[in-house]
Amino acid sequence: MNTGFNPHISVDIVVFGFDDNEGLKVLLINRDKDEQKHPARLKLPGSLIIIRERLSDSAQRVLQELTGIKDIYLKQFAVFDNPERLKDGEDLKWLCDSSGIMIERVVTIAYYSLVKLHHYSETELSKAFNARWYNLDDIPDLIFDHNEIIAEGLSVLRKEFLTEPLCFKLLPKKFTMNQLLHISESILGIELDNRNFRKRINRLEYIIPLNEHQKGVAHKPARYYIFDSRKFEFIKRGHTGFII
Amino acid sequence: MNTGFNPHISVDIVVFGFDDNEGLKVLLINRDKDEQKHPARLKLPGSLIIIRERLSDSAQRVLQELTGIKDIYLKQFAVFDNPERLKDGEDLKWLCDSSGIMIERVVTIAYYSLVKLHHYSETELSKAFNARWYNLDDIPDLIFDHNEIIAEGLSVLRKEFLTEPLCFKLLPKKFTMNQLLHISESILGIELDNRNFRKRINRLEYIIPLNEHQKGVAHKPARYYIFDSRKFEFIKRGHTGFII
Repeated sequence: MNTGFNPHISVDIVVFGFDDNEGLKVLLINRDKDEQKHPARLKLPGSLIIIRERLSDSAQRVLQELTGIKDIYLKQFAVFDNPERLKDGEDLKWLCDSSGIMIERVVTIAYYSLVKLHHYSETELSKAFNARWYNLDDIPDLIFDHNEIIAEGLSVLRKEFLTEPLCFKLLPKKFTMNQLLHISESILGIELDNRNFRKRINRLEYIIPLNEHQKGVAHKPARYYIFDSRKFEFIKRGHTGFII
Repeated sequence: MNTGFNPHISVDIVVFGFDDNEGLKVLLINRDKDEQKHPARLKLPGSLIIIRERLSDSAQRVLQELTGIKDIYLKQFAVFDNPERLKDGEDLKWLCDSSGIMIERVVTIAYYSLVKLHHYSETELSKAFNARWYNLDDIPDLIFDHNEIIAEGLSVLRKEFLTEPLCFKLLPKKFTMNQLLHISESILGIELDNRNFRKRINRLEYIIPLNEHQKGVAHKPARYYIFDSRKFEFIKRGHTGFII
């Protein structure tokens, strides 16, 4: 029954970056550092795993080797196992050339992360690693199924964003309603009605208005809010534990 | 950097079965159908994948080949990738012998399912496939990390049970409070306080009491309830969408 064949295993990492000015972006690299041997072609940071390595260790190692980014929280979100995912002949030739081995099939384990964009300067990433942030609307045709991996990662990110307090890790401790609106719109990729949004947020017991406003701004100073994580956890437990 | 090594990939399936009399059980098979060549040793249904096969197709195929169970909903829940997971020499020898290939490392993709126990008769499973249902308290030492896979599967099942209306697929359409209590206790593996449980359930708007009671029972006839899935979805959406 078994023919002795065994597929390879890789990890691929979708790093989303956000900041207030730039919005939501994704980190891509060129498949070759020097672009000499093969035509330029973009991909996610990713690579085959090493024999005695855990997948999560592979993901951290590969991300650091290919982008310089290290020790960030990576969440495993899906396995991409379509037997035809390497079908593009040119991409497959590049993979065999660059790895030096014959490859028939690769199953890849995908991770994602959400980081503060301004922590990772584009100049440094680009100089050392040929890595660059791309707007979600400007992603070109990537190698293999990497466009699909990003789409799936984005869908998981959005679901998590709607049920978990992800965004407060990216906002300053004290934030304005506009900042919360902006990050929600950026990550969800939709425009939200300003007035309904404010109403809804004002009803949430875990978002606490402060008696403190912006200083030194040209427009009317906006109020600051903070996120009460203990209250959030308490309310969440109450609503989701549906039997006990 | 890459040594030409590539690990094998397998699927393993944790099938949980429940019914009112038997409680929650898990399906195990013997690693050999005839128990001649190797000492008897229990494992989850599972096997290496075939070259041009999707993982979900592998899981369905392997489950059918090893237990006769087919076309059930299987949910991928984790990847088990510890490089030392095959470390038991005797188990590894069996795997190499039975597959006829040299194996260094196997990464396994784990699936779980929850089925009605009485749909799968023990006699048939056992006769044809040497498969048997085991109480969660009576699981012996299994091959490789299969005890760990079951423990993780159970933990995922319990989390899903607390947030999703899983149990209503296993209960009759009209059920009594005692049946709901029993399935909750079986799956969660804890004893629940009868009175508090009833109070809590009575507050849930999506569990609807009927004007209909058990007939022909020796004790006081219990009231029947039904689950309103539309109401459940409506309420759930209201509570978990925390930004919009």
